[in-house]
Amino acid sequence: VHKQNLNILQHKLDQLHPADVAYILESLPLDDRLMVWDLVKAERDGEILLEASDAVRQTLIADMDSEELLAAAEQLNTDELADLAPDLPKDVLQDLMYSLDTQNRERLQSALSYPEDTVGAIMDFDIVTIRDDITLEVVLRYLRRLPKFPDHTDKLFVINRDDILQGVLPLKRIILNDPETAVGDIMSTDAVVFHPEDMSDQAAMAFERYDLVTAPVVDNNRKLVGRITVDTVMDIIREEAEADMLSWAGLREEEDFFASIWKSVQNRWAWLAINLVTALVASRVIGLFEDSIEKIVALAALMPIVAGIGGNSGNQTSTMIVRGLALGQISSYHMKSLLQKELGVALLNGLLWGGVLGLIAYMLYGSAALGMVMMAAMTLNLLLAAVNGVMIPLVMNKLGRDPAVGTSVLITAITDSGGFLIFLGLATIILL
Amino acid sequence: VHKQNLNILQHKLDQLHPADVAYILESLPLDDRLMVWDLVKAERDGEILLEASDAVRQTLIADMDSEELLAAAEQLNTDELADLAPDLPKDVLQDLMYSLDTQNRERLQSALSYPEDTVGAIMDFDIVTIRDDITLEVVLRYLRRLPKFPDHTDKLFVINRDDILQGVLPLKRIILNDPETAVGDIMSTDAVVFHPEDMSDQAAMAFERYDLVTAPVVDNNRKLVGRITVDTVMDIIREEAEADMLSWAGLREEEDFFASIWKSVQNRWAWLAINLVTALVASRVIGLFEDSIEKIVALAALMPIVAGIGGNSGNQTSTMIVRGLALGQISSYHMKSLLQKELGVALLNGLLWGGVLGLIAYMLYGSAALGMVMMAAMTLNLLLAAVNGVMIPLVMNKLGRDPAVGTSVLITAITDSGGFLIFLGLATIILL
Repeated sequence: VHKQNLNILQHKLDQLHPADVAYILESLPLDDRLMVWDLVKAERDGEILLEASDAVRQTLIADMDSEELLAAAEQLNTDELADLAPDLPKDVLQDLMYSLDTQNRERLQSALSYPEDTVGAIMDFDIVTIRDDITLEVVLRYLRRLPKFPDHTDKLFVINRDDILQGVLPLKRIILNDPETAVGDIMSTDAVVFHPEDMSDQAAMAFERYDLVTAPVVDNNRKLVGRITVDTVMDIIREEAEADMLSWAGLREEEDFFASIWKSVQNRWAWLAINLVTALVASRVIGLFEDSIEKIVALAALMPIVAGIGGNSGNQTSTMIVRGLALGQISSYHMKSLLQKELGVALLNGLLWGGVLGLIAYMLYGSAALGMVMMAAMTLNLLLAAVNGVMIPLVMNKLGRDPAVGTSVLITAITDSGGFLIFLGLATIILL
Repeated sequence: VHKQNLNILQHKLDQLHPADVAYILESLPLDDRLMVWDLVKAERDGEILLEASDAVRQTLIADMDSEELLAAAEQLNTDELADLAPDLPKDVLQDLMYSLDTQNRERLQSALSYPEDTVGAIMDFDIVTIRDDITLEVVLRYLRRLPKFPDHTDKLFVINRDDILQGVLPLKRIILNDPETAVGDIMSTDAVVFHPEDMSDQAAMAFERYDLVTAPVVDNNRKLVGRITVDTVMDIIREEAEADMLSWAGLREEEDFFASIWKSVQNRWAWLAINLVTALVASRVIGLFEDSIEKIVALAALMPIVAGIGGNSGNQTSTMIVRGLALGQISSYHMKSLLQKELGVALLNGLLWGGVLGLIAYMLYGSAALGMVMMAAMTLNLLLAAVNGVMIPLVMNKLGRDPAVGTSVLITAITDSGGFLIFLGLATIILL
């Protein structure tokens, strides 16, 4: 690229929103990405790193030396630092800690001390606080003197002398009421509050349900420690959905599309290894019946149908249950009624589709007994799939594990091996 | 239940947020649900219907007569009506149209005329507009006289005499500036705007990227026609993620957990039917090689491994691509580099896992040639999976179809039939 073109590109980048620059970086192969990254003004590095996806952020950080990283980090405020910190080299993080004042160092340490999926890890400290005994007139004068009015502020937090939350004052009440009114007379005292140890996905659900823009975070003594904003919540919802989708397909983490082949292999190998083991088990189940297959070779052609349909049906059931658990609409309390329903669906589907398949098997191979075995095996495997589709997510949930992870593998493993066992077993008993 | 208990329950329900009542209704089996629904005060029916999931809303509407429905609908404003309208019986909708004034009828008709996945279908009309030549003092007086200050209002929309959008005035600027300032001097003129025909998922992505709370919707002449709010956008993100998850498992729509068995069978049958067809095709491929299987029965036990691992690997690849397309990070422009990478990953995985499996096959059956066939077939099927995992989503996207729907079925069908064909074909050529 010519030097002049680089200048034009640099000028264009300077005018873009940091999120747009991050997006461009994500869409570029590694070499081009690092070239563009070098063109970005150093004082924008911090905000762009924040916007980039985890995988791409790591490639950008790997390209920077300690000094550049420190300079970038120093442009960020404490909660932004907390987001970036896990990706920073240890020595940079340490230097950074030294450069902070006491309050911000304590905030950063406390933010880093909360597990990733809790409110404590996603809250920020851009809180505007007022007392309840002042008038709106005073509030307005105070706000106008603030060095920075934080984004997304739709309400002010009312605290007492000891930082204990008394209530919240929506901006619109400041606008709509007489300047002489006292804060305490018009603040709302029943606002939704969160605790740092609350789960962030629960908080996200509360934001959706009550249509919140910001909400205060308080400790067990109702002392105000931070706030959550709707933009963070949107990120949580999106990331959760993506994590579900990735884990569904057995990808360990988000992949940089232009990552090396070796990195991609590492990201995917665990799942393939698990599948290999379950496939080997299923293969050994078939191995038990090699004599039967040798005598009736049609069994080999028909058996994958029984296993496959069972797997699909089981995954339909478990997807429903996982979704219901995530929305909090079902619990192990409903186990009996859910089992009854799913067994009913499986029985109906088994007789229906098993009947169709039995007929096809009869027409293909001219054996009515083979057709009957096919229908019976389909029905039994669908019932097996239904029981596991209901039970596995409910049990995983009861054990405190995420039912979205691994359920699909387990169900497919059971319906594969189970399907082969049921079909070949029935055939051996009835047909031989 | 005793009458007294019902009174207590009714009292409790009256105190709950409509979203919480909807949540309780969703968690109850049909009989209990309708009993609780009857206890809810009639004047809250509308807002609770809005909060309920589609499947549950339908059961509640089915329980109401036209008069009750009309009464419920009349409590809602136009954009809420637009959300509810598709579920209402035709005659109720018609009566409703008559009961509206001209402006609201036109708004409702226009909202219903936009496709479900566009901005026009999700915008609301709770807009507060001002002129640019007035002072903040006048703005404040105007706001205090408003009958209702809409939720989520973080900015006012500045229009001229012809309703053309001139800019937006964030509430915080009203608070932070001197009351004598003119709106035109402090309004922001580079706000993100949407058009009614924009796709709602694109709008959602813009909300996330630019951290918006509300945004104006304008027609092609920049005439202000509505607004979008972040709570609607959160619903869109959540629904999109859920739709992906459901379509992944082949569920046609969201299921009411306590729906009848028959309804559930209908929701799931299409997918099972498709799977039946693809499984039958794979079965016929095996049928072609019955002679080979009769001679070497080990082939029957090993073939599902080749097919299964191929399917899983192909779904990993396609999940990545579908995600990249959804985020707008990749397009058919990247086809070549993505293909190269995925083929590299497949080759490496094929040699690695194919090698392991070949070794296991050799140990189990004592045939080095069988082990070699296993390894070669694994590698070839993983390459087939990689090509399809990249191409199918890209082609679907190019044809204007949603790549999340059906991709998984197609890939599994190809890797199943392809895996059987490759493995049994190679075995027939080399071993017999």
